[in-house]
Amino acid sequence: MASDEIKKVSLAVIRRLPKYHKFLGELLQKNVERVSSHEMGRILGFTASQIRQDLNNFGEFGQQGYGYNVEQLYNELAKILGLNTEHKMVIVGAGKLGQALAGYGDFERHGFKILALFDVNPDLIGKSIRGIPVHDINDIIYFINENEVDIAVITVPRENAQEVADTLSKTMIKGIWNFAPIEVKAGPGVIVENVLLLDSLLTLSYRMNESRVKERIATQKNS
Amino acid sequence: MASDEIKKVSLAVIRRLPKYHKFLGELLQKNVERVSSHEMGRILGFTASQIRQDLNNFGEFGQQGYGYNVEQLYNELAKILGLNTEHKMVIVGAGKLGQALAGYGDFERHGFKILALFDVNPDLIGKSIRGIPVHDINDIIYFINENEVDIAVITVPRENAQEVADTLSKTMIKGIWNFAPIEVKAGPGVIVENVLLLDSLLTLSYRMNESRVKERIATQKNS
Repeated sequence: MASDEIKKVSLAVIRRLPKYHKFLGELLQKNVERVSSHEMGRILGFTASQIRQDLNNFGEFGQQGYGYNVEQLYNELAKILGLNTEHKMVIVGAGKLGQALAGYGDFERHGFKILALFDVNPDLIGKSIRGIPVHDINDIIYFINENEVDIAVITVPRENAQEVADTLSKTMIKGIWNFAPIEVKAGPGVIVENVLLLDSLLTLSYRMNESRVKERIATQKNS
Repeated sequence: MASDEIKKVSLAVIRRLPKYHKFLGELLQKNVERVSSHEMGRILGFTASQIRQDLNNFGEFGQQGYGYNVEQLYNELAKILGLNTEHKMVIVGAGKLGQALAGYGDFERHGFKILALFDVNPDLIGKSIRGIPVHDINDIIYFINENEVDIAVITVPRENAQEVADTLSKTMIKGIWNFAPIEVKAGPGVIVENVLLLDSLLTLSYRMNESRVKERIATQKNS
């Protein structure tokens, strides 16, 4: 029952945690022992109170006037982010994007190990991409359950993405990281993180356009 | 002076705009004429007041009790997001990721036209990827200025990304969309949107781990 008392942490807070974790890792490498919320905020571009509030969601880390213990906070955030356990991943779709992600060393360095790619294309099945084998998509349910894979990455075309998510929902998978440009749904207990590249591009486009937007609003308000 | 009075719109709000725009586009296709903030919120997973607050940043769109005019709001959001003008893009790095993005039709459909890829690899220079030519990186400054390219996508390895951003900052480019796993800096007047894939993966990992995090905090609080 106790865990029900913990309030839901907003996605906006969660999305800031990797930035805190990365920053603390950099401090740790420089042998910095303590850091204040002000210092963190100044460098990361948030207010000190934002950072204190965010971290307070997960326990009491800082000490008034003494700041945070860098190593302790780094390790706590690693646990919170699930970085203290190794994750096993498969990539569904061995096309250009799947191959690009398979070669992206940053994931493995953080404990996300890619075991295999899966595809329907007989020209790709049996090959290996940077040492990672490409298997037949028909073997995916068996493979995931047998190897206790917990994350599947979807890089298939839009029109096949939901079908893949449905197949994955029949396995022991716990998380789907979806790159297809459609928000896929998965079965109960499976967390989906949709990487919506177009939304990111539109955010850039908005920011490039922001001064013009402001002028337009100002003109409307003055008219 | 008037535009200075408009308050800075937070990045969190900006990141929600593409979702509103997409949702309204879907309603428009179904010939829906009006929609309430409650209905939008229910389907998109936000509160009605959140949606009203977000949209109020950009003017007065809704009418109390009548909701929003779907077509009008869709068109206004398109303007706000910079979708009413065509954007010209180049991709720097014609490796797997660059090639994957070059084949991603969603961008062109939204007015983001990819004119060329650039690479250092002589085996790739002169080839074309789905009809888009791969040019020598040495020609990029001339190409961008000559063709009035406004967005450059960086898909080069981490160690070359800042150098590419520095080169781009010497051109007329207005926005950089960076996929290298490092936050690049650009010159004044150039907006940078970093696509931090690892942060997205860590968000998934946190959410998969959330119930365990909550249990741990509850145990600490009860001890």
